[in-house]
Amino acid sequence: MKKITINVPASVANVSCGFDVLGFCLEEPYDEMTIEIKKTKGVEIKILNEKSIPTDPKYNVCGPVAFAMMKKLNFKYGFKITIVKKIKPGSGIGSSAASAAGTAFAINYLTGNKFSKLELVKFAMIGEEIASGAEHADNLSPVIFGGFTLVRSIKPLDIITLPSLEKLYVVISHPLIELKTKDARLIINKKINLEKAIHQWGNLGGFIASLYTKNYELMSKTIEDVIIEPQRLKLIPNFKKIVAAASTYSIGSGISGAGPSIFSICKGKGNAELVLDAIKKITDKGNIEYNLILSKINTVGIKTIN
Amino acid sequence: MKKITINVPASVANVSCGFDVLGFCLEEPYDEMTIEIKKTKGVEIKILNEKSIPTDPKYNVCGPVAFAMMKKLNFKYGFKITIVKKIKPGSGIGSSAASAAGTAFAINYLTGNKFSKLELVKFAMIGEEIASGAEHADNLSPVIFGGFTLVRSIKPLDIITLPSLEKLYVVISHPLIELKTKDARLIINKKINLEKAIHQWGNLGGFIASLYTKNYELMSKTIEDVIIEPQRLKLIPNFKKIVAAASTYSIGSGISGAGPSIFSICKGKGNAELVLDAIKKITDKGNIEYNLILSKINTVGIKTIN
Repeated sequence: MKKITINVPASVANVSCGFDVLGFCLEEPYDEMTIEIKKTKGVEIKILNEKSIPTDPKYNVCGPVAFAMMKKLNFKYGFKITIVKKIKPGSGIGSSAASAAGTAFAINYLTGNKFSKLELVKFAMIGEEIASGAEHADNLSPVIFGGFTLVRSIKPLDIITLPSLEKLYVVISHPLIELKTKDARLIINKKINLEKAIHQWGNLGGFIASLYTKNYELMSKTIEDVIIEPQRLKLIPNFKKIVAAASTYSIGSGISGAGPSIFSICKGKGNAELVLDAIKKITDKGNIEYNLILSKINTVGIKTIN
Repeated sequence: MKKITINVPASVANVSCGFDVLGFCLEEPYDEMTIEIKKTKGVEIKILNEKSIPTDPKYNVCGPVAFAMMKKLNFKYGFKITIVKKIKPGSGIGSSAASAAGTAFAINYLTGNKFSKLELVKFAMIGEEIASGAEHADNLSPVIFGGFTLVRSIKPLDIITLPSLEKLYVVISHPLIELKTKDARLIINKKINLEKAIHQWGNLGGFIASLYTKNYELMSKTIEDVIIEPQRLKLIPNFKKIVAAASTYSIGSGISGAGPSIFSICKGKGNAELVLDAIKKITDKGNIEYNLILSKINTVGIKTIN
């Protein structure tokens, strides 16, 4: 095998109560990545439909991931990476994570599947660090493992796969403004109130229990963020309006990753369609253009195409 | 029914990664409480074997619980509460919680079971506030619901019962020094590092996942406290020595509640006995007397006697 084309999905990190630890994988949108072995050394990156991302492998998240894997494998050749980017950069649904995870997945595939999924996340984290300025795996883990994941620990890296509820659908409301994860991280206070932390970890514990017990009512109560969301609100257009519009038919809504996208988790496709309609009434009114996306939870993560 | 005698068990709160939210119930030790309806108004409290606790219902945790329930029930008579106290006050295994929870359970029983378990925790919290200076339910919930519980939220009160693993045993190492919960709370910083909070909620999420998946290896990694324990260490004699001694055969150890007791969770009675022996070698050497207790997890909470 010298070439592989893969479907690399978007993902939602944080999920309100699980800042930097919780995430889940989406079916839509996804990037298409073709990675092929080339006879010359080095990494060549082509992005077919997006001009804003650097293609120099030093500055593109794919580069350092590929270099690290090549070094570990003592790989003599190089890779050509071609991306059809459907996950908008800076949208808050894991655009850079997809590129980093896709690179790790594909190179592993093309070189004989020597690495575990956990090791793939570790390689991909090298790319994520470039994009966000912090080592984190909350988007990468669901893309590589599928479904819902918990990054229990970064050092050492420990990822727990959680039950993925088949009934869950998600509406993503993406305002077409770009928000760099780096910038969204900068405004967050490094100190927090113990009282709020207790509130937050009570909710995270409850969210995880809700996945195991398929308790949507409980899940609904736990999708709440008393620490990060209040600080990032000002960066997210129409946040309160969209959350309110979604609330009748959704389980819960919050900032997706560092934003500016908002996720709304729904039970069943019918409810998700109602939520999408309700949000559309809000977003049609304003000056900001929106991409509204309806997606199922992706329980497997990256898929090979053909 | 005019009189009831109950077994009111001890409990372990916090469990390292779940400060103020996580707790579990023990089989041993337990208080014996006899509550009977008396024809005269008011609450009379007798403690048969412990002089350090006030018996004036204004200052004993049982009093305010009983008064609040009597008011709610529009109860015309009074109660006589007799306690054989086997859970040492100030030991960190829910001595005051037992008295408050036992009072709520027994009065409910004697007056026709009008309240839900959640309501009983709410009544009992009135007593806990007197004892610890803070409204909390992390000891009360396992005593009333049994097994492992998560206090997802205090306002509004929301308690999640978690799976109780039958194989789990616990060793409690109780140094015979008294540590008031009020004082142990006072030394805790009200502000914490976000980074440490993330570490802590990753562990709490992992602990809860470990209960649902019976994954003892995962549980072992999550029994860690990077926030409260480092601050309270100095109040707990021989903490590091005891944790180290227990570590070979235990899943994990930590401060029980506000201390000074240390809990060590073990898989199976055999391991718990080995842990107890290893700890005894440490505690036999020093100047501080210890109560070492081996207990199964109590999956039902308070029990009626006869």
